[in-house]
Amino acid sequence: MHHGIGFIQDLAVVMALAGVVTVLFHRLKQPVVLGYIAAGVIIGPYTPPFQLIHDEQTIQTLGELGVVFLMFSLGLEFSLRKLFKVGATAIVAALSEIVLMLWIGYEIGSAFGWSSMDSLFLGAILAISSTTIIVKALSELGLKRESFAQLVFGILIVEDILAIAMLVLLSGIAQTGELSAGVAVVTLGKLLLFMTVSLVVGILVVPRALNYVARAKSDEMLLVSVLGFCFGFCLLVVKLDYSIALGAFLIGAIMAESRHLHRIEHLIAPLRDAFSAIFFVTIGLMLNPAVLIDYAWPIAVITAAVIVGKIVSCGLGTFLAGKDGRTAMRVGMTVSQIGEFSFIIASLGLTLKVTSAFLYPIAVAVSALTTLFTPYLIRAADPLTQRLGQAMPRTLANVFGMYGQWLRSLSTGTGDPTLFSMTRRIILQIAVNLALVAAIFLIVSYSAPYTGSLLGHWMSSEPMQRVVLWSIALVLSMPFLVAVYRKAKSLALLLAEVSVQPATAGRFTRAIRYAISDLVPVVSMVGVFLLVAALSSSILPPTGLLIAVLVCAALLLALVWRWCVKIHAAMQIALRETFEEQPDP
Amino acid sequence: MHHGIGFIQDLAVVMALAGVVTVLFHRLKQPVVLGYIAAGVIIGPYTPPFQLIHDEQTIQTLGELGVVFLMFSLGLEFSLRKLFKVGATAIVAALSEIVLMLWIGYEIGSAFGWSSMDSLFLGAILAISSTTIIVKALSELGLKRESFAQLVFGILIVEDILAIAMLVLLSGIAQTGELSAGVAVVTLGKLLLFMTVSLVVGILVVPRALNYVARAKSDEMLLVSVLGFCFGFCLLVVKLDYSIALGAFLIGAIMAESRHLHRIEHLIAPLRDAFSAIFFVTIGLMLNPAVLIDYAWPIAVITAAVIVGKIVSCGLGTFLAGKDGRTAMRVGMTVSQIGEFSFIIASLGLTLKVTSAFLYPIAVAVSALTTLFTPYLIRAADPLTQRLGQAMPRTLANVFGMYGQWLRSLSTGTGDPTLFSMTRRIILQIAVNLALVAAIFLIVSYSAPYTGSLLGHWMSSEPMQRVVLWSIALVLSMPFLVAVYRKAKSLALLLAEVSVQPATAGRFTRAIRYAISDLVPVVSMVGVFLLVAALSSSILPPTGLLIAVLVCAALLLALVWRWCVKIHAAMQIALRETFEEQPDP
Repeated sequence: MHHGIGFIQDLAVVMALAGVVTVLFHRLKQPVVLGYIAAGVIIGPYTPPFQLIHDEQTIQTLGELGVVFLMFSLGLEFSLRKLFKVGATAIVAALSEIVLMLWIGYEIGSAFGWSSMDSLFLGAILAISSTTIIVKALSELGLKRESFAQLVFGILIVEDILAIAMLVLLSGIAQTGELSAGVAVVTLGKLLLFMTVSLVVGILVVPRALNYVARAKSDEMLLVSVLGFCFGFCLLVVKLDYSIALGAFLIGAIMAESRHLHRIEHLIAPLRDAFSAIFFVTIGLMLNPAVLIDYAWPIAVITAAVIVGKIVSCGLGTFLAGKDGRTAMRVGMTVSQIGEFSFIIASLGLTLKVTSAFLYPIAVAVSALTTLFTPYLIRAADPLTQRLGQAMPRTLANVFGMYGQWLRSLSTGTGDPTLFSMTRRIILQIAVNLALVAAIFLIVSYSAPYTGSLLGHWMSSEPMQRVVLWSIALVLSMPFLVAVYRKAKSLALLLAEVSVQPATAGRFTRAIRYAISDLVPVVSMVGVFLLVAALSSSILPPTGLLIAVLVCAALLLALVWRWCVKIHAAMQIALRETFEEQPDP
Repeated sequence: MHHGIGFIQDLAVVMALAGVVTVLFHRLKQPVVLGYIAAGVIIGPYTPPFQLIHDEQTIQTLGELGVVFLMFSLGLEFSLRKLFKVGATAIVAALSEIVLMLWIGYEIGSAFGWSSMDSLFLGAILAISSTTIIVKALSELGLKRESFAQLVFGILIVEDILAIAMLVLLSGIAQTGELSAGVAVVTLGKLLLFMTVSLVVGILVVPRALNYVARAKSDEMLLVSVLGFCFGFCLLVVKLDYSIALGAFLIGAIMAESRHLHRIEHLIAPLRDAFSAIFFVTIGLMLNPAVLIDYAWPIAVITAAVIVGKIVSCGLGTFLAGKDGRTAMRVGMTVSQIGEFSFIIASLGLTLKVTSAFLYPIAVAVSALTTLFTPYLIRAADPLTQRLGQAMPRTLANVFGMYGQWLRSLSTGTGDPTLFSMTRRIILQIAVNLALVAAIFLIVSYSAPYTGSLLGHWMSSEPMQRVVLWSIALVLSMPFLVAVYRKAKSLALLLAEVSVQPATAGRFTRAIRYAISDLVPVVSMVGVFLLVAALSSSILPPTGLLIAVLVCAALLLALVWRWCVKIHAAMQIALRETFEEQPDP
């Protein structure tokens, strides 16, 4: 009982001070997050009283639990459904914000003469806005239900995904020192593959498992199961060299499709609140106020750049995507701060030892300042729009108005399900099935060293081991391969119908259509085979055996074709059901 | 982000396995706690696969957080109100259970030839039943609202308090190797003083502070404040060399008087469930199954002793306190297991290095076995009572029946507020006020080394420093001293009225009554002064100065007497209000 006293003392200091601070900052009507950071600075080693914390490592570890719960909660609020609703506008706005802020950050860093790695990380730190701060600010101002708020949440979701891609890319750059286009494409491709497969498999498995658990009506069971899934998945993600943050976010997004979403949110909230408080305190712990004074000038410049840059980039993006000027201004003013992701990126730089020590306190200071301004900026959006509207020259206002009208006239034309949307849908389905096939072959390849030694007990011949493994992967992926073939076929039929018109092809119309609709699927399956062979090169059997395997597989396929179609259809239906189910209130 | 991977991996293994196990054991209709322990054994170092945990220390630390949240939750369920309701019966039953089980445990240990310290700890391990297991078993059987269940909860509350006293005493015995009656009295006296003062001051301060916080309607703020109070108080308790378990329990009991009890319970439940799962897993981690086989014989004997011993001792206690045979049997069968407190006591022995290594796994094994039997025993209570009733010789049954009638005839006589209950009430009030006075002088004495060096800046004379400190303590305790005097006076009046009857004292009645009612308070105040002087001997000024201080104090007292009475009355009212307030639904 007594060996943890140092730890309990640390926790007591952190929680007691956090408790005082949360009340104080609420009284001052300031975001509590700032209070936690201030508490961290007070406790921390740079300000008197010194040495309030004995075992900083343990507190840091608890702070990391805070990141896990924070990202998990963000994932729970993420929803593919919501994303589709605000889709295009959110993507345009988020992309224009991130690209512009990356560039501004990099330029500012270079202008101050910092190393290119520092400048790059500064760009990344400035790119992403803070979901936590925005959600709190909007709900405190009572604006959470307005339509511009929905758009902001959409932008934040897109930003979260892009931030995760950025985390992966930054780790890559930091380790290799450079970023070739090829590496970037492969890295992002892997990430996309991993996310797609995780989401599909996860949404098939996890909500069903949770439904089963939830039947017992025991909060304890549900919570422990949720945590088991959460940490289990985080472990898998970490083993694949991605960050814990990504894992927690993804498993959260998967559970967001569960019928018991609201119960889960309720159970996780106390854990998130307690540990995110510790996380924000640990941010303060690392903050040396002396550095802030030394870097007062860059902090001021960067703060101004974040506020102006985000209003312009995100506002302009929203406007270009077809929203009116008032909405654009409100969106821009709302996202004009940086937060938790900036800390995660800054500490990534520190952990990988590629950024200078001053970058972290600068990120914290800029986040604190921009967070402070957020509520005032949101409130200032409407008056500012009015004043701008009055001050704007009439011609310019006319141009803007016409742009909006033109864009709206474009979008009304595409109301019914067109050929384009049907094609897009089939291609998406093919891509998802291909991702699953690729994942199966990759998993079997990666597990080859372990399963190989296991198979070694029965067969010593290495090529035969490969045959067994490759066959297993092939059989497992058969339902998806069949699905790819069938979708390719229907795509080909559709294309043949459209592209070969009797007017031009005359009496060959039917023949050419048949040729296309038969040829395209076969050619695509050859392409699929080449892709699979490339992915599974480490377990690909020698040519002779490979042909034997393929022949056997073809025979097997003829037998189980209908079963494959059935099982795939069942999975598709299950996925759609989970997806379309509304969470219980 | 990456330095915590080992830790996240450990947590992932623990939570994932706990998640599987909680579902499995629910399916098998067994208590989940057993599942957690089994999961711990699987993960642990003694069974294959080995080395699933990298950093056992961190997991142990999280397990300790589990103890804190578990005890805090027990405290929240503790209620002085509930305790008063089932008071006498619960105390008799709990005392008879604890004393008998301590003795049985000690005798069994001695019979197996274990050291006297091992035997003593075994007794303590067997003495306390498991609140967690009982609450779960009763609610699963749907018996939670029955009247015997209320009595069981009362017994558990008394047991919790006695267990805490036992923890304190055991630590003392373990450190000094023996227990003299004097040391025991002083130790328990200190504990009682500490608990009284904590409860009184805590109930005055904490619920009010939480009311203030709760007004913001933010769950995050309330949670962080609750945790701040919880860990802050735990820190204080640990600094006073008591266990964290005591601190968590006491602050829980204090918060149980808050209006927001149910909100707090709701917020703490996920933290408790998550970390108590880890705590029970860590118990399994320490369990070496090989030891269980070596000690199969003692385990069997002890398990039988726990079940039979608790049924007999607790059942008999309940019956002797005036309940009918059926209730007594049900109570005895319900409490016939050991649980979380046994683990805490066993690990105390290990930490203090006074018990042998085999005691811990034996405790775990006995707890697992008795927990397994609990639901069956509860269900078997009624049939067993019937069979016993039929098998019992008629004379014996008659004697039992007459005992019950006699007891009930006794208790009905004392329905209205009698002299006895009035006297008891006044003495209780005097005791509480004296405890507060004693606490003030003790705190000032203990803080003398720190405040003395601070005072040293202004005055170098050591006797003058004492004068200042002692005067501060005296002024602070004035309202309570005045209260003690006034209560003593009313007690004396009451006694004089009763003991001096005109029939015997004749015409001196009034004079003698006056003498008693004036003399008794003065004599008691002299006693109080001697007590205070003894407690504050380290800061007691030299005699000359002391007399000067006392004279000044007397003059001051004459000025502020009414203010003292007022402030004390205000406190008393505030305390009663908090106490009588029902928690919000």
